[in-house]
Amino acid sequence: MSDVHAIILAGGAGTRLWPLSRRLRPKQLLRLFEGSSLLQLALNRLDGLFPSENIRVVTTADLAPAISSEIPSLTPNHIIAEPALRDTANAIGLAANLIARSSPDAVMCVFTADHLITPRERFQEVVRQGIAALDANPDALITFGVQPTSPHTGFGYVELGDQLADNLRAVAAFREKPDAETAKRYVDSGNFLWNSGMFAWRIETILNELKTHLPANQSALESIAADWTPESRPEQFRARYEALHRVSIDYGVMEKAARVLVVPMNCDWIDVGSWESIAALYAADAAGNISIGATALNEKAGNNTIVSETEHLIAAIGVDDLIIVHSDDATLVCSKAEAQRVRDIVERCQWEFGDRYV
Amino acid sequence: MSDVHAIILAGGAGTRLWPLSRRLRPKQLLRLFEGSSLLQLALNRLDGLFPSENIRVVTTADLAPAISSEIPSLTPNHIIAEPALRDTANAIGLAANLIARSSPDAVMCVFTADHLITPRERFQEVVRQGIAALDANPDALITFGVQPTSPHTGFGYVELGDQLADNLRAVAAFREKPDAETAKRYVDSGNFLWNSGMFAWRIETILNELKTHLPANQSALESIAADWTPESRPEQFRARYEALHRVSIDYGVMEKAARVLVVPMNCDWIDVGSWESIAALYAADAAGNISIGATALNEKAGNNTIVSETEHLIAAIGVDDLIIVHSDDATLVCSKAEAQRVRDIVERCQWEFGDRYV
Repeated sequence: MSDVHAIILAGGAGTRLWPLSRRLRPKQLLRLFEGSSLLQLALNRLDGLFPSENIRVVTTADLAPAISSEIPSLTPNHIIAEPALRDTANAIGLAANLIARSSPDAVMCVFTADHLITPRERFQEVVRQGIAALDANPDALITFGVQPTSPHTGFGYVELGDQLADNLRAVAAFREKPDAETAKRYVDSGNFLWNSGMFAWRIETILNELKTHLPANQSALESIAADWTPESRPEQFRARYEALHRVSIDYGVMEKAARVLVVPMNCDWIDVGSWESIAALYAADAAGNISIGATALNEKAGNNTIVSETEHLIAAIGVDDLIIVHSDDATLVCSKAEAQRVRDIVERCQWEFGDRYV
Repeated sequence: MSDVHAIILAGGAGTRLWPLSRRLRPKQLLRLFEGSSLLQLALNRLDGLFPSENIRVVTTADLAPAISSEIPSLTPNHIIAEPALRDTANAIGLAANLIARSSPDAVMCVFTADHLITPRERFQEVVRQGIAALDANPDALITFGVQPTSPHTGFGYVELGDQLADNLRAVAAFREKPDAETAKRYVDSGNFLWNSGMFAWRIETILNELKTHLPANQSALESIAADWTPESRPEQFRARYEALHRVSIDYGVMEKAARVLVVPMNCDWIDVGSWESIAALYAADAAGNISIGATALNEKAGNNTIVSETEHLIAAIGVDDLIIVHSDDATLVCSKAEAQRVRDIVERCQWEFGDRYV
């Protein structure tokens, strides 16, 4: 485990958590989890698993200042600021090429900042198993698969192949987000795991796979990485970076690579993508209300999720099944049935008020 | 019209307009009406009708600083700050005794700050009629009665007696707030007006009536007025004032006085007591939404009343029949059906959080 590196992908904004999440204050920095942000929790999870100097956060140039100020322990060396969002194959590829410059023989693991994963001990044990599996399978791409707890249609699935070792399986196939019926069949079969977006591989392996399956991207990324210094500004790479073909690591590499193995991760793994998924983490009162922050409800208010980031008070009288979220300059009042429409209202605000509230 | 004085009663807090109205920022100071407050509008209505030095605002010591800072044209001489709220007979009685010290022969008119009254020209004309009626009826108490536009159960009613002159009637009786059936009968008969809480009388007359019907109150008020100076602090009168029997001018004087006349006021007279009554002043969009301030609604939001005092944005998605009101430190989300419960939640906040949000 001497030369192992980790990256945490933290480039998205998380529109569905508006009005707390914003263009320049993304979801992964919101301190919604006992005062900690998702990114901080993702970093904490890696404590003791990787040397801290080998942990990097990959984000966009827009978000890098907020991440840097929120987590001062991350030096510029630890933040890889992409000039633009070009999906995960490029984010991972840029990081791999940068790590390769000083540590071409290293192992590299990829993590996300969008999930709550517990317990930490088991998470670390499984990651260690994945890294260890590279000893016997040095040219493999290892993906971590999460035990499904529901027939979720929002995730990709990994179909399990042969058992190769203790907690190590071949991947029979990657399956895109299924419809409800297919998802149920997957879960009932016991032969599918959620595609977690977490990986382990040798740097040399991933660079070879990128070269094979995404040669134009890899060539451009290698050249960008060669010119990259901690002092260089992302702007100078913008034109070259924006020219990259957008592609996800799953579609661009994992589904095409010859030797992909999966390490099942039997952890609680919660995608924190919406107000409802956050509410599910809190205990409701007898009337089904979940309150985060200062609230006052009357006895006729039921099944509401109420979030106040500051000490601003939210009073709810006689209302049901609402999501109410207060931030400094905007408040959301949304029926739970329409929660997936938050994204639309953010677009409408952009259109009507410009950047002010987005 | 040379020695005519006016007072505006502005002592209440208006709990039902929480969270905009507060203990120390009462309803009558909220700038909800094209940037003006109810108190400012009440003052504007008297422009040209009374010499400005003869117009006084009666409020409580708690609210006097806010009134003074909101309306700088009101000098300490123009603000009568009661040490405590002791209902309208005492508020009016204190003012009458104070005016009597320099102008014992004056005419005094009483107005409220809780209503929108238009058009101003007609309002002023009717007030002039009421004052003029005192020439032929110098010992009368004149009340202004408003033409009812609905069988409202929240107002007292004045039953009309004989026609005494053009737009001057005797009062047959004062009627307390009626039940719905009685209110309908009153309005259908055409013989009842709403009791507006606006009056005209000679100072000498009202002091005599107070002495007759509320002798203990009048004796105490006369003594307080004798010690009162613009420099004296309300606190020094607190004990004497708090000892006053609480009583309204209607119950304590008007219903008992021998000679009460009514001048019908054929104006639009809107009681601004709740969010719904304020909403009724604004035009709704096609979906029935009324927006005051910065809002963003999706097409599934209907019949909501949304008020943002500042530039704070309120976004409403898929919600119906809600009252949403945002203030600096508290937001109300209330079903219209439960609008009368706002008062309760204010009490609950007081209990749970102390003075902080009330």
